[in-house]
Amino acid sequence: MVQINDNFLKLPGSYLFSEIARRVAAYSAAHPEKALIKLGIGDVTLPLPQAVTAAMHKAVDEMATASGFHGYGPEQGYAFLREAIAAQDYKARGVDIAPDEIFISDGAKSDCGNIVDLFGPDNKVAVCDPVYPVYVDTNAMSGRAGVYDEKSGKWSNLVYMPCVAENGFMPDLPGELVDMIYLCFPNNPTGAAATMDQLKPWVEYANRTGAILLYDSAYEAFITTPGVPHTIYEIDGAQTCAIEFRSFSKTAGFTGTRCAYTVVPKALQRGGASLNAMWNRRQCTKFNGVPYVVQRGAEAVYTPEGRAQVQANLAVYQNNAKVIREGLAAAGLTVSGGVDSPYVWARTPDGVDSWTFFDRLLQEANVVTTPGAGFGPSGEGYIRLTGFGQPDATKEAVERVKAVIR
Amino acid sequence: MVQINDNFLKLPGSYLFSEIARRVAAYSAAHPEKALIKLGIGDVTLPLPQAVTAAMHKAVDEMATASGFHGYGPEQGYAFLREAIAAQDYKARGVDIAPDEIFISDGAKSDCGNIVDLFGPDNKVAVCDPVYPVYVDTNAMSGRAGVYDEKSGKWSNLVYMPCVAENGFMPDLPGELVDMIYLCFPNNPTGAAATMDQLKPWVEYANRTGAILLYDSAYEAFITTPGVPHTIYEIDGAQTCAIEFRSFSKTAGFTGTRCAYTVVPKALQRGGASLNAMWNRRQCTKFNGVPYVVQRGAEAVYTPEGRAQVQANLAVYQNNAKVIREGLAAAGLTVSGGVDSPYVWARTPDGVDSWTFFDRLLQEANVVTTPGAGFGPSGEGYIRLTGFGQPDATKEAVERVKAVIR
Repeated sequence: MVQINDNFLKLPGSYLFSEIARRVAAYSAAHPEKALIKLGIGDVTLPLPQAVTAAMHKAVDEMATASGFHGYGPEQGYAFLREAIAAQDYKARGVDIAPDEIFISDGAKSDCGNIVDLFGPDNKVAVCDPVYPVYVDTNAMSGRAGVYDEKSGKWSNLVYMPCVAENGFMPDLPGELVDMIYLCFPNNPTGAAATMDQLKPWVEYANRTGAILLYDSAYEAFITTPGVPHTIYEIDGAQTCAIEFRSFSKTAGFTGTRCAYTVVPKALQRGGASLNAMWNRRQCTKFNGVPYVVQRGAEAVYTPEGRAQVQANLAVYQNNAKVIREGLAAAGLTVSGGVDSPYVWARTPDGVDSWTFFDRLLQEANVVTTPGAGFGPSGEGYIRLTGFGQPDATKEAVERVKAVIR
Repeated sequence: MVQINDNFLKLPGSYLFSEIARRVAAYSAAHPEKALIKLGIGDVTLPLPQAVTAAMHKAVDEMATASGFHGYGPEQGYAFLREAIAAQDYKARGVDIAPDEIFISDGAKSDCGNIVDLFGPDNKVAVCDPVYPVYVDTNAMSGRAGVYDEKSGKWSNLVYMPCVAENGFMPDLPGELVDMIYLCFPNNPTGAAATMDQLKPWVEYANRTGAILLYDSAYEAFITTPGVPHTIYEIDGAQTCAIEFRSFSKTAGFTGTRCAYTVVPKALQRGGASLNAMWNRRQCTKFNGVPYVVQRGAEAVYTPEGRAQVQANLAVYQNNAKVIREGLAAAGLTVSGGVDSPYVWARTPDGVDSWTFFDRLLQEANVVTTPGAGFGPSGEGYIRLTGFGQPDATKEAVERVKAVIR
């Protein structure tokens, strides 16, 4: 009899966004006349930049000819894309990352999930609280999280690092020794961005203890504040302790087009092994690369036209975030984020819990948000709103929310 | 200090195709004037069917507009594609598979690799010998294979089921109890196709013992012999014991376009858990779906024009396989496969070993093949050739090989 991986049975019910979808569907079914505005899930809404679709059309044309056809590509991604990334996302910021330290993939979610393959089962894992659920669930599936306690909302073997108003939404170094540390800046869900000085102690901690930083910078393109680092490798010493996850999803509108990359520096060694070689082996064995057409689309993000078009789209989302942040603040809510991030993190009024406030905004304002409690115990008492909506709808949503909470 | 997954350190050196690439590159560097013909790796060469590229162009156009833009899609794939598959790949063969039993992915290699997430570490794994290396390596990485012995070419905890001339390249049921059984028909690398009667004992065995069949039918489109099943679910009872992997790679030329699917029937339960629910959870947590543009391309494979164009391409590859099989047989080699499969499996002459014959064909015929030993100990003494080349080059390669072995 085959034994299943019974860690799966320990996972609590629904994934956060499924539960939101369920509540929204139920409300819509009961009130089909209501026009909902969705500021919940972090999905983009603007079309792909013209430079990207032009490159994709060209690549599709190539695939239709014998001479231009591309079969299996390198599992790690094409050199043209890895080189563009190395030059423009790193070298241009004074960071030396070689193309063979960059692995193209179908998504940061895939990579954040699959990276656990490289690590033993007994590592102590530290996560921010609140947190992107993928870090937690993938470690639970692979047996590192222990047992889930419904009451506290915590797994017995994880170390939770609260990110709350009291510490400016910046985690403190863990009080016990940990081995794998997930950090995400600009943060999902709080929208907080970390400065050089705030990141340095983490690099120092990881190099001193031999821990690994799993650094998710999927939202770096939203950084506007000068001096806020766009990559963990802007911190000296990070190449010997950090893996970085990046994505075209939020930067260039690729949520439905699927392209991302992960950086594993060759200087990153643990237990006598090269993590770069291990990830390369993992990807060559369990992955066959990203569609040629998609990689050509991603490459176009790095052309002058592509960059300008991406910046124009980002400006729309950044302004949406500003509208939400300023509107809710004007209505008396305590808000953070939304400056270097598409996410605004708002305290619920009168101490009501996240799901209650979520339901209230759904039912009274017809606005869909994300309840902070869905991201972890310290997210209780908050909701997340995103700047990814359409500008007019975003303004309308803010007015509706203001009317409800006044 | 983080502990790495030290199972990675047990993996022997290079992945098969990397070693081939290395030898080919070395030979080419030393003999730049020689024109090599590659009949080694199983990669397609014909352009994407016109119906597919037309659908992809249309989808790219949609992605360029606000109204047609698609962000995150369902992790499991769009209904339009899952429904086409259920209707045409299953229902049309008298098999009831529901769309929610079909999970669209970026590749059969990904799914064959990632499926190990669902199973506990102590399962006994049985593989055919020779075998597609991914089944072995992914179980080695997740700790089920034990220790690799260089001399025998075997892992200590795997059960090897020889597929050799003596048993018509059909594995015998294992003599000891096993839990996870990988089967691939039409087979990679031997090209053997299994009949209904040859598959029935496996379904019976798995249902009786509680084992799981992991059935790779990535090459089903090459079946020409009437009565040979295209899916494991043509065998009664398979829905309670089998997961099936399918791909558009070899069927429709998607090796560089990346689309595949895996069927996990809802009737498949083990240890009180639904494998369908577990795979759904795995995919929702660690995967974000296949590009919209690619899924529209895959959908076009099921249109009347798409089907006709795919069949025309397959006919080219099938004829190539016939040319190889008949040519090598005429030259005195013992060959099998190549009828219901793009793969021809040829015995080396005079009992020389696989790599020696590989090197001889590379150096004297300038033809790249795949050494059978790379697929496992029972592949020793064989080479694999594929029908995926261009027709003229394939004919030329066969003539060159004939000249060398005469």
